[in-house]
Amino acid sequence: MDYPAPIAKLINSFTKLPGIGSKTAARLAFHVLEMPEMEVSQFAQALIQVKRDLTYCSICGNITDTDPCIICSDQSRDTSIILVVEDTRDVMSMERMQEYRGLYHVLQGVLSPMEGRGPEELNIAQLIKRLQDEEVKEVIIATNATAEGEATAVYLSRLIKPAGIKVTRLAHGLSVGSDIEYADEMTLFRAIEGRREL
Amino acid sequence: MDYPAPIAKLINSFTKLPGIGSKTAARLAFHVLEMPEMEVSQFAQALIQVKRDLTYCSICGNITDTDPCIICSDQSRDTSIILVVEDTRDVMSMERMQEYRGLYHVLQGVLSPMEGRGPEELNIAQLIKRLQDEEVKEVIIATNATAEGEATAVYLSRLIKPAGIKVTRLAHGLSVGSDIEYADEMTLFRAIEGRREL
Repeated sequence: MDYPAPIAKLINSFTKLPGIGSKTAARLAFHVLEMPEMEVSQFAQALIQVKRDLTYCSICGNITDTDPCIICSDQSRDTSIILVVEDTRDVMSMERMQEYRGLYHVLQGVLSPMEGRGPEELNIAQLIKRLQDEEVKEVIIATNATAEGEATAVYLSRLIKPAGIKVTRLAHGLSVGSDIEYADEMTLFRAIEGRREL
Repeated sequence: MDYPAPIAKLINSFTKLPGIGSKTAARLAFHVLEMPEMEVSQFAQALIQVKRDLTYCSICGNITDTDPCIICSDQSRDTSIILVVEDTRDVMSMERMQEYRGLYHVLQGVLSPMEGRGPEELNIAQLIKRLQDEEVKEVIIATNATAEGEATAVYLSRLIKPAGIKVTRLAHGLSVGSDIEYADEMTLFRAIEGRREL
């Protein structure tokens, strides 16, 4: 005996989400069955709206419900600095810090030869266009500290530097509050390499 | 800066599911953003349909899209045995075994004084009604081997036995293929208690 069709379909939809296997999907689907009808219809609506109402900002590539996004259209921000990140969640993390007042550029991924993602697949052409149009003095590359993130950073810096724009990279080192004992070799190496005078 | 409203709403909906915290919810919501529109609308539809098209079988309490459910309306099944389980997923597990040909009764939970769930909250009155109407010879209690499952089993057996109906409980012991070395004390105790002559 199989699950009744409606629940089988919902389980199938849940399994398409990352990190959700068939057992978890079944558990979630049965939970939906017991949720108030109101909440379920809000959930369904939220799914539809995310696809319908969100677009990528035509300037920075961030996910937004207005174009240009609220950061690009904020007159109080410093337009001479662009911080380049992999995706929208990174923008959120930076904004949570409440210290950075420049603009962003969202690559929507990183270079990954393994997954067949080259520069054309990323939001790089638009970045170069911005650098020509706007009076940008510094590009901070804030891709993740992974092999792919590093490779993307190097690629971008080679692309941008010849135009005479300052290109910087986020510092690597020990996390605040972390123990040296637990730091990996690469992090320690970067921490020593980037040491500063006290 | 917060997430744009549509994605914030979707993240909020995801966090209402069991075992999904805010970080996972954000990851899932961003994944939805990149899913094909077709799949997302199927997902939304599946959510709505699960609430709209599924009901509980008026006989056994199983989740179904027809009433009575396909098991209760299957003429070839042995109506003299009822196997009592906690929820629909347990029915699925039993059916996967393809050995049991009797009927089921789904309690839709277990007795749990801690969560304020007494006999009235469970599908027990309907079970008693079935035992009066139908010619049932045996009730197999297959609640989980947890403290609450055991308490529910004892409660049901006290309720049913006086009517002269045979009440049985699933055997407890070592899982097939398991090592004695790794079995917990309670399981070993039950395995010895339930030993059989070879």
